[in-house]
Amino acid sequence: MTTGTQVHRVFNFSAGPAVMPESVLEQMQRDLFALPGVGMSVLEVSHRSKAFQAIIDQAVADARELAGIPENYHVLFLQGGASTQFSMVPMNLHTTGMPADYIVTGTWGKKAVKEAKRVGEVNVAATLEAENFKRLPRPEELKLTRGAAYVHFTSNETIQGVEWPGEPEGVEGTLVCDTSSDMFSRPIDVTKYGLIYAGAQKNLGPAGVTLVILRDDLLLRSPEGLATMFNYNTHAKEKSLYNTPPCFAIYAVGLVFQWLKAHGGLAAMEATNQRKAGKLYAEIDRTGFFRGHAAKECRSLMNVTFRLPSEELEEKFVKEAKAAGFDGLKGHRSVGGLRASIYNAFPEAGVDALLEFMREFERTNG
Amino acid sequence: MTTGTQVHRVFNFSAGPAVMPESVLEQMQRDLFALPGVGMSVLEVSHRSKAFQAIIDQAVADARELAGIPENYHVLFLQGGASTQFSMVPMNLHTTGMPADYIVTGTWGKKAVKEAKRVGEVNVAATLEAENFKRLPRPEELKLTRGAAYVHFTSNETIQGVEWPGEPEGVEGTLVCDTSSDMFSRPIDVTKYGLIYAGAQKNLGPAGVTLVILRDDLLLRSPEGLATMFNYNTHAKEKSLYNTPPCFAIYAVGLVFQWLKAHGGLAAMEATNQRKAGKLYAEIDRTGFFRGHAAKECRSLMNVTFRLPSEELEEKFVKEAKAAGFDGLKGHRSVGGLRASIYNAFPEAGVDALLEFMREFERTNG
Repeated sequence: MTTGTQVHRVFNFSAGPAVMPESVLEQMQRDLFALPGVGMSVLEVSHRSKAFQAIIDQAVADARELAGIPENYHVLFLQGGASTQFSMVPMNLHTTGMPADYIVTGTWGKKAVKEAKRVGEVNVAATLEAENFKRLPRPEELKLTRGAAYVHFTSNETIQGVEWPGEPEGVEGTLVCDTSSDMFSRPIDVTKYGLIYAGAQKNLGPAGVTLVILRDDLLLRSPEGLATMFNYNTHAKEKSLYNTPPCFAIYAVGLVFQWLKAHGGLAAMEATNQRKAGKLYAEIDRTGFFRGHAAKECRSLMNVTFRLPSEELEEKFVKEAKAAGFDGLKGHRSVGGLRASIYNAFPEAGVDALLEFMREFERTNG
Repeated sequence: MTTGTQVHRVFNFSAGPAVMPESVLEQMQRDLFALPGVGMSVLEVSHRSKAFQAIIDQAVADARELAGIPENYHVLFLQGGASTQFSMVPMNLHTTGMPADYIVTGTWGKKAVKEAKRVGEVNVAATLEAENFKRLPRPEELKLTRGAAYVHFTSNETIQGVEWPGEPEGVEGTLVCDTSSDMFSRPIDVTKYGLIYAGAQKNLGPAGVTLVILRDDLLLRSPEGLATMFNYNTHAKEKSLYNTPPCFAIYAVGLVFQWLKAHGGLAAMEATNQRKAGKLYAEIDRTGFFRGHAAKECRSLMNVTFRLPSEELEEKFVKEAKAAGFDGLKGHRSVGGLRASIYNAFPEAGVDALLEFMREFERTNG
């Protein structure tokens, strides 16, 4: 347990919405009633005001700086989460007359396929569902379409805890990635992608805004007649201000970007995330009492999924952990067991405290 | 100018995002770092947690209580603003084979028509554009379709400052209303409507969430194959929790609902709003120096639009008003002049202060 400047806070292992940096929460709290120099809350500021324009411009500039996003990519803040992107991506990009390839490594990839199929032909280039999504496909298992409209994958499957160490091999066309649960947790070479999207509520900030990074030339693909709000051209042209954006969520994400910069950027995040996850996986592997869900070579640094010897012990673990101040450790029902989500903002002290709890639990229940 | 508990705040006449109740801001500020009894910020709480379920359940219950929403209506919190509803409404309801009627009384109604036309046949039952949207159509001007899929109107046109005193006469079928800028500013008989939608960022709370009130039987109209996120059935079935909702915005709207209840509900709001707007319109009509944009019988209680004798004086007014602590008074470019948006949360003291400023401005410039 940690104690904030004001009140008791638990260790929040939730998969998202998830823990945010305490210093960001403190700044938001300090300025919530009235933004300094503005005289109104950021919740009340017009999206057409200079004050808000400065906020969104800074957030875009910081995203560009953090990830080295080139000028021929648009950085957009949209609404509706990754679930809406599951439809917007094919509605805008699945217009070349060729199938779209989807590499399915977990629950979210499956959902993306379901929506894409409503729009056009989908080739599932690989799915690991038969193996309960415990590993990534090997390069030779990928059945890619030559000239596919695009190739979609999910960089980190939040539920299964399976993460790509990099981009899939052998993709020649437009790469599209759902990075919702590991965006900005490590460096990313944006130039390898056509489109990247991420719901904010894991590494980037609160729920209610979706980051979309889109290469400019792909805008030509959007068909005539598409609903204005579902057309990337609308938001690219108006720089996310066609209609009233989720101002507060964008403000919050902007503060997280500044926090990321102040803490060394994405390379520093990756180092910390490797250390945090490394400690947990080492504990999981120590005796065999705990068993990791994902194959070792594709273990997620964000969502550490593991089982105990029995479901009874898993239930007991969750219950006792919660009583000890560790919240959100119950795994998703489709995988079972436990899941520790340890995004950028999750404090290493919380990982260390959980390790102690795990050892003590094994000692008394093993 | 008003001084909050902590810092200087201006009078915010912005059309939206707009002023929020100070007591709501204070409560949000107090609890931002950690919700009492939860140990984490509302920005960090899982949308699958008991804590958030209690927040959204309370918000729905309070909306039902405030507006007397019957059980056969769903109360949903969606994303994407009214602009997204412009498409979702026809995508879900324009499936009867009959045209949809749209009554156009301003800029937002025009935008709704544009999106509906992408989906199906639209009959513009009336448009007052030729008269620069200064008045509402008379009953005999409404060219309604017998058996229309639905009849859409905009209860208050934010830009023109034209508000319907009640529902259009003579509508027999399914009434659909964009109430973005006057929702919960007065009592509403929900049973007269099939679907009501409202972006929150005027009367209901911050930007980032859209209130949708939908009669249950209309769910049968949504076509097979509609994208999951654009299908009302998804959100009705999952009670707005199909995917991660905009948790913080829902929390904020819930606090505003509690504030509304504590201040006498919608009837009390209407009385206050009539008094606030009445003072401003009386000043506008006093000498002829100021001229109201909207015809008297359809003047908005929310957005008071008016002109001065010249554009030079209008510019001077905006500039001097801003310096005196009155923000957001510049009218929309399509109407010109001034606009004072005085939603539920706008303090009557701010109206009184503006009246004094207007009199003094007229004295020195009239």
